[in-house]
Amino acid sequence: MEIIKYPAKETWNVLLQRATQSVADIEDIVAEVFENVKVKKDKAVCSYTHRFDKVQLDDMFVSQDEFEESISVLSQELKEAIRLAKRNIEKFHRAQDIQGERITTSKGVFCWQEKRAITNVGLYIPGGSAPLFSTVLMLVCPAKIAGCKNIVLCSPPNKEGKIHPAILYTAQLCGVSNVLKVGGIQAIAGMTFGTESIPKVSKIFGPGNQYVTVAKQLATKYGVAIDMPAGPSELLVVADESANPAFVASDLLSQAEHGVDSQVICVSTSVEVLEKISVEVYAQLEKLPRKEIAKKSIENSKLILVSNDLIALELINAYGPEHFIICTENNNFYCQGIENAGSVFLGNYTPESAGDYASGTNHTLPTNGHTKAYSGVNLNSFQKTISFQKISEKGIQGIGPAIEIMAEAEGLFAHKNAVTLRLNSLKNKK
Amino acid sequence: MEIIKYPAKETWNVLLQRATQSVADIEDIVAEVFENVKVKKDKAVCSYTHRFDKVQLDDMFVSQDEFEESISVLSQELKEAIRLAKRNIEKFHRAQDIQGERITTSKGVFCWQEKRAITNVGLYIPGGSAPLFSTVLMLVCPAKIAGCKNIVLCSPPNKEGKIHPAILYTAQLCGVSNVLKVGGIQAIAGMTFGTESIPKVSKIFGPGNQYVTVAKQLATKYGVAIDMPAGPSELLVVADESANPAFVASDLLSQAEHGVDSQVICVSTSVEVLEKISVEVYAQLEKLPRKEIAKKSIENSKLILVSNDLIALELINAYGPEHFIICTENNNFYCQGIENAGSVFLGNYTPESAGDYASGTNHTLPTNGHTKAYSGVNLNSFQKTISFQKISEKGIQGIGPAIEIMAEAEGLFAHKNAVTLRLNSLKNKK
Repeated sequence: MEIIKYPAKETWNVLLQRATQSVADIEDIVAEVFENVKVKKDKAVCSYTHRFDKVQLDDMFVSQDEFEESISVLSQELKEAIRLAKRNIEKFHRAQDIQGERITTSKGVFCWQEKRAITNVGLYIPGGSAPLFSTVLMLVCPAKIAGCKNIVLCSPPNKEGKIHPAILYTAQLCGVSNVLKVGGIQAIAGMTFGTESIPKVSKIFGPGNQYVTVAKQLATKYGVAIDMPAGPSELLVVADESANPAFVASDLLSQAEHGVDSQVICVSTSVEVLEKISVEVYAQLEKLPRKEIAKKSIENSKLILVSNDLIALELINAYGPEHFIICTENNNFYCQGIENAGSVFLGNYTPESAGDYASGTNHTLPTNGHTKAYSGVNLNSFQKTISFQKISEKGIQGIGPAIEIMAEAEGLFAHKNAVTLRLNSLKNKK
Repeated sequence: MEIIKYPAKETWNVLLQRATQSVADIEDIVAEVFENVKVKKDKAVCSYTHRFDKVQLDDMFVSQDEFEESISVLSQELKEAIRLAKRNIEKFHRAQDIQGERITTSKGVFCWQEKRAITNVGLYIPGGSAPLFSTVLMLVCPAKIAGCKNIVLCSPPNKEGKIHPAILYTAQLCGVSNVLKVGGIQAIAGMTFGTESIPKVSKIFGPGNQYVTVAKQLATKYGVAIDMPAGPSELLVVADESANPAFVASDLLSQAEHGVDSQVICVSTSVEVLEKISVEVYAQLEKLPRKEIAKKSIENSKLILVSNDLIALELINAYGPEHFIICTENNNFYCQGIENAGSVFLGNYTPESAGDYASGTNHTLPTNGHTKAYSGVNLNSFQKTISFQKISEKGIQGIGPAIEIMAEAEGLFAHKNAVTLRLNSLKNKK
């Protein structure tokens, strides 16, 4: 791996650039699927499932038999691991259920916020080579804790018309029974408009490929909210002499194996540390089953040497990594200074894969620099905050005149009148 | 006003439908402006300002002289009213700064969340007939409390090339000096791409007409976050015999005067109450300066009679009003049962205009049924939540084996290896 030494600030933009994806050619097919699903509903969904997933389904719903089969085919140790992860994820997300207090802003003017679950949510779990049952945990656990009433989970069927048993086991364990074998654009379109089988939802969550990403973007045009824009996964590690180079290399590789477009960056103030990490990366790479993928993304990855912690921090905030591992003697400095990141991992014994599976934090995180404006999925993602206010007679007498003046200055006389009427009625009372 | 009596549930969908806006014809001009601003930057912005706002500007920035002039021309009582509102808004939004606690999910596994301000935010304040200085308060106060470093405020110039002094006074009072005379699509495009004068931002806030709404939607395609999709303002009141019909009528009218597309609904279990309110609406309407506007939106509005509180609540949640006034003997029932609403007003002395200006709650709220998935603007809108985790040696020994099993089941061996290496090193330690 090449070490980029002391890059000038003017070059950061180019250096930290993500691989851009051209979506213009995808937009046409996404718009076509949306149009068809909107009009022909289930019939269109089934026909796209046949075309894209190469399977003809009689029924989109996962049956009770299929759920039960999933329990019987999974190993006991995997089921126990999933349950451990579930407990930790629930514990962390339950602790996010914080209610604000009632505030008296002026005498007799009481304001507060209350949180309410989003009633109808749609969760998307990608298919493909890896069955992402861990993502089921990450989406269903907070949805359940928030109290979402109707949860639908869509995931593409394989060529045998099945969903991986680990996904079904996890969905069932978390209490979701409404699982549909539908993937890709047609799943997102189905949840956007609703079909005979697929319920219409108010918000769609979950990762996916470029097609799913563009489809989610289009869904927002039809008034459906989404968790966040998705993109290839990424990791930035800041390391010094206190870091274990083998551990850092293993983290870089665990990110690199996700896909050839995954991005991996390691920042250090020590060229020796970077060199040691590079050696370890190549040594470990050879032993990986997904080594061809990891090799490609390692080629696009960067070891960056900077002159001090301040510059390192500035560079890291300019990049805004999805995953950020801090292995330095100065962990507090980075902890306090980090402004843009999805999830932060501290110290030698906190690998990124802990957060991917079982530490309790959520792994559905903003990528592609979206950390600058978006949070990862958390309990709040499944809730709305509603404001409440109650004003007493004394209260409106206190703030009423200010409202009258402001409403008049904005030319809104009915707004003013709503206050004037009340103030007059109180005068008459006396 | 017509009273709709006991509508069957099957008819609610049509009954509660919002006026739909066709945006297809707007999309072309929005896309054109974005393309031009992206490439030609300030030059394009100025040319669109000339075309749409009919004014040629030498400098987009509001000068210090203009700020100072705004102080001198505003009345003392308006300045005091704005300061009172500011104090209440700050008090309420400051109380939203709640930090979570550090959780031990498993022994030696520590997880927590921290909030960070979005560094670069763009605020849009519409021009037009009413100078919305109150919206300046609603956007700048939480941005400042969150700690956003760079705040840019865009608002269209009038034909004299000026922004209303109340907007400038309020911006300055709240500590925003970066105010640009640029409006409409070109303002949103400018903040999306950045120009020589307009800074690029990560998130855009604020209301606007259809052009601004479509432009904000397009901005999300370029990776810029937005507060929420906007739409015409709306109010739903639930009232019984305990409500003051004149007060309710004044609230309905204060909503109706916003624009001909504003929507007003009143729900009651008593036909007499609805009749009294209707009489009051027409009596008060005559005296309003904006009566032509209010009359048109009152024509589209609905008085709905239902048989009991349960059905009323169900109907209200199906609608999901932006503003929701509760004036009943049973306020608690509605308070607890409301799932979809932007801001809730309780009792006879809590007019909607209090929340618009000075109670302290935010008036930037989801409309058009978006209350089902979106919150109104609040402190969190200007922050991101970052997850942190720190795992001890004991901690990774506890959860490590579960991670290994899960990673292997997902086919991600480098993820597994990142844990295995660490567990082995700890075995060797013993």
